[in-house]
Amino acid sequence: MGKDKYAIGVDFGTESGRAVLVDVSDGHEVGTAVHKYANGVIDERLPGTDIRLEPDWALQDPNDYLEVFKHAIPAVIKESGIPAEDVIGIGIDFTACTMLPTKKNGTPLCFLPEWRNNPHAWIKLWKHHAAQPEANKLNQIAQEKGFDFLNRYGGKISSEWFFPKVWQILDEAPQVYAAADRFIEAADWVIWMLTGVETRNSCTAGYKGIWSKREGFPPDAFFKALDPRLEHVIDEKMSRNIKPLGDKAGTLTKEAAGWTGLRPGIAVAVANVDAHVSVPASAIVEPESMVIIMGTSNCHMVLSKDEHIVPGMCGYVEDGIIPGYIGYEAGQSCVGDHFAWFVENCVPAAYQNEAAERKMDIHALLEEKAARLKPGESGLLALDWWNGNRSVLVDVDLTGLLIGATLATKPEEIYRALIEATAYGTRIIIDTFKANGVPIKEIVATGGLPDKNHLLMQIYSDVAGMEVKVAASKQAPALGSAMFGAVAAGKAAGGYDTIYDATQVMAHQRAEKYEPIPENHAIYNRLFAEYVTLHDYFGRGGNDVMKRLKALKVEVLQKNLSEK
Amino acid sequence: MGKDKYAIGVDFGTESGRAVLVDVSDGHEVGTAVHKYANGVIDERLPGTDIRLEPDWALQDPNDYLEVFKHAIPAVIKESGIPAEDVIGIGIDFTACTMLPTKKNGTPLCFLPEWRNNPHAWIKLWKHHAAQPEANKLNQIAQEKGFDFLNRYGGKISSEWFFPKVWQILDEAPQVYAAADRFIEAADWVIWMLTGVETRNSCTAGYKGIWSKREGFPPDAFFKALDPRLEHVIDEKMSRNIKPLGDKAGTLTKEAAGWTGLRPGIAVAVANVDAHVSVPASAIVEPESMVIIMGTSNCHMVLSKDEHIVPGMCGYVEDGIIPGYIGYEAGQSCVGDHFAWFVENCVPAAYQNEAAERKMDIHALLEEKAARLKPGESGLLALDWWNGNRSVLVDVDLTGLLIGATLATKPEEIYRALIEATAYGTRIIIDTFKANGVPIKEIVATGGLPDKNHLLMQIYSDVAGMEVKVAASKQAPALGSAMFGAVAAGKAAGGYDTIYDATQVMAHQRAEKYEPIPENHAIYNRLFAEYVTLHDYFGRGGNDVMKRLKALKVEVLQKNLSEK
Repeated sequence: MGKDKYAIGVDFGTESGRAVLVDVSDGHEVGTAVHKYANGVIDERLPGTDIRLEPDWALQDPNDYLEVFKHAIPAVIKESGIPAEDVIGIGIDFTACTMLPTKKNGTPLCFLPEWRNNPHAWIKLWKHHAAQPEANKLNQIAQEKGFDFLNRYGGKISSEWFFPKVWQILDEAPQVYAAADRFIEAADWVIWMLTGVETRNSCTAGYKGIWSKREGFPPDAFFKALDPRLEHVIDEKMSRNIKPLGDKAGTLTKEAAGWTGLRPGIAVAVANVDAHVSVPASAIVEPESMVIIMGTSNCHMVLSKDEHIVPGMCGYVEDGIIPGYIGYEAGQSCVGDHFAWFVENCVPAAYQNEAAERKMDIHALLEEKAARLKPGESGLLALDWWNGNRSVLVDVDLTGLLIGATLATKPEEIYRALIEATAYGTRIIIDTFKANGVPIKEIVATGGLPDKNHLLMQIYSDVAGMEVKVAASKQAPALGSAMFGAVAAGKAAGGYDTIYDATQVMAHQRAEKYEPIPENHAIYNRLFAEYVTLHDYFGRGGNDVMKRLKALKVEVLQKNLSEK
Repeated sequence: MGKDKYAIGVDFGTESGRAVLVDVSDGHEVGTAVHKYANGVIDERLPGTDIRLEPDWALQDPNDYLEVFKHAIPAVIKESGIPAEDVIGIGIDFTACTMLPTKKNGTPLCFLPEWRNNPHAWIKLWKHHAAQPEANKLNQIAQEKGFDFLNRYGGKISSEWFFPKVWQILDEAPQVYAAADRFIEAADWVIWMLTGVETRNSCTAGYKGIWSKREGFPPDAFFKALDPRLEHVIDEKMSRNIKPLGDKAGTLTKEAAGWTGLRPGIAVAVANVDAHVSVPASAIVEPESMVIIMGTSNCHMVLSKDEHIVPGMCGYVEDGIIPGYIGYEAGQSCVGDHFAWFVENCVPAAYQNEAAERKMDIHALLEEKAARLKPGESGLLALDWWNGNRSVLVDVDLTGLLIGATLATKPEEIYRALIEATAYGTRIIIDTFKANGVPIKEIVATGGLPDKNHLLMQIYSDVAGMEVKVAASKQAPALGSAMFGAVAAGKAAGGYDTIYDATQVMAHQRAEKYEPIPENHAIYNRLFAEYVTLHDYFGRGGNDVMKRLKALKVEVLQKNLSEK
């Protein structure tokens, strides 16, 4: 064994898994290996069959996850050139809620020939949206019967979450429901496969499974009210034993050691979620800093000692991000997606040609042009609801708005207005947290966008009137998972006893920061006031035109279909 | 002399003059010749000098108009191959208010060496916008002192009109004001040059010069209130003798006959304005039909026996379009301009490439794609205020709005939403006329757009719930001018005694019409209701965000300038 100790973090994304080998002594990311899922996102037909899936379905193949262990971990060890026996712990993070039915021993139903051709036997990926009817019924029943857990989730359980998905299986495939001994998050399932022990983590249980440390799951009476067959779902097919983040789930089995080339018996951490594990990886383990994971959408995380009802956030969970704290999550549905839409649909040929001639990415060209504008100069203002509103208003039927266009309006002005709109959306979230007892003093950005768009970072700082720091790692989820792996190993084995200790040493922020420019902040305060007025007018019932337009659209499309 | 008689109409546009030779017996357009103005629109420096013009200035050179007579008329005679002596009359139409200062004999001040270097000695083109301060003061004073002529103009005199331009000359160049014996519309000035007689037409006097048949010009006291030096401007530098449309202004002088190759002594009609002369050219000389001249902007014309105050129209003038009727005018500032802006700034390379490959105009491609959509299908709604609102609200500080965008929104959906928005804008005008006692039962379209965009025509019909007919002539203003030339000649000379008689024979509509499709009209009624709500919210003080955004934009731009 060498002197240095290492931990491995495995980040399970939507299309691939990424293993990162991290030096426990300083957080240095020694090596990275990515393994693409052979079956990727399954949304057209079941692999190897002609069985077609309905719209809004999105499945995965659990074998793809095991292949990540079998390929990416050996690859990263080999690439790094370190002795495999110096790896002291593993942690993982996953998309969520991504869930599956299994037998008692953990075998996914879809591995069994008798269930393989039933789509409900497969993994329901986070973006499987076909359980919307069940989510609607669940919310209605919870509200009517006065179950106040809804307050913890901004008033609504999403169709992406655990129980709507379970209920959809019961509704549409009661035989699969009956055959399933366990319903489990894929995050916990891969830990089961590494350790041979079934565990359940506090993060997915809390944010996706309506569990809280103080109240546990909703009472059986609630599940009975949904469907009598669901009454005992927790005790029959799940577990009330929820482990806090930072705990050790177990140790690596011989079989899993064989897959990975690692030593049997090393520590395996309780599973985590990609966004949530990014918080300690961004060097945040205390309240008052909001970590924003910026990508196609934004995910906002903040810690607090106290429990507060904050309207319209996604949820708050004790031990949900960092043990000992209430972890609050909020989100914006459309950020990078906004700019991708704009580039695909609204950027004229002249700009594409200029970017090609100058060998620039089109986003970089738009950023360059937009950066020449001063705040307020375009006269434009947008509501960032191209993909509905997931924060504060929690309304998927809201749509995008652009105001202030003239015959002199240029593409880069619209581009900048869209960036600004997402910044106003984030500020609404920050202001809502602050107004409801959760203080926020700075932003720490991570995810794909901070490196891609410096203008965006400055605008967020100017709009929020806060310093914006940037996490050093470009693969924060995997780093965070490795940190939890080092914590699972413990100090005695060369790791750390707590995630606080690990964070001090292994997580870093960049030297570069974005400071608010006072005159920009002053102008953005005026623009933000306009944003709030429009936000409330269109989002809180002043004028429900967006919903009526969307209803009309559905009506017309249905009529089109029925005429065909 | 041959058996057939002909009239010539000359249409003076912004960049060129167009002469059309028309067969008086059936309105057949025998030939056309266009002559481009050598000096075009003068908005940077005075021709042949280094004298720079301020922003918002737009001048022209009166010699360019004379060149049209000298080149385009001989050219059209030659092209047509008809004997010049068979031309019995000439009419002209002009942009307005396009005005100039002259000496007593009609010599423009800018022809005289001592004034040639003073920009105020030149022609102020219709789109010269530098008299805005004078227009503002004029409106304020008229309102404060209770001069109710403002009611005839939707409550406001535009900076484009006659007296703000005169007042700007007095303000900024009192010596030019003093040296000017006459201030006159270019329309009337070219007639003066043809006939040797100064006349003033009822159309420009009424729509641009605050004149009415019943009340004449505002009283001297009003002009005195503006500036004591203006008190006697009407009697000193203008004329109270206003000739109705359809009158003969005089006969062709020997000199003008020399320029044009026509017979001296043939009839010359009182001058007219391009939009207004399009009404009889569209075969409309009676109430209840709205003629819309559709081009970069829309101009709406309708006749009525009675005088009504209609909020927000551009003006109403007795004998202003057709003698014997009150002619009402309204406008939309941004129609074709909208689509041009969209194509230049918002159409992605993929669409440009597809149009190039299929050898289609990009507008035609967008129309093809947009035509596949049903009303309501896009979920989009727009306010057509990219160039302010000229109708009903009369507010240049309003700006464009698009609502309902999603990540699935396509360019052709936005394109169609912009077309629909201009149709809603027209419907607001129609509804406002109808609600105020001016009935409208059908639309007759003319101008450049009806041929270019059939989808637009159908949408106008569907939105208005009215039949839309199309004027047969593609050069309606010149045809209308020729018709007035035939009327000036009179029946005895082979023409007509009235514009009614001329219209029966010389003006035509196409066989093709657009009928409203009932299910489209029903859906557009719902969308129009949403449009009206947004129109009133943003346009009538519910939320003045557009004005505040525009004010902030000006503030930022001025700060930018002062820092440079």
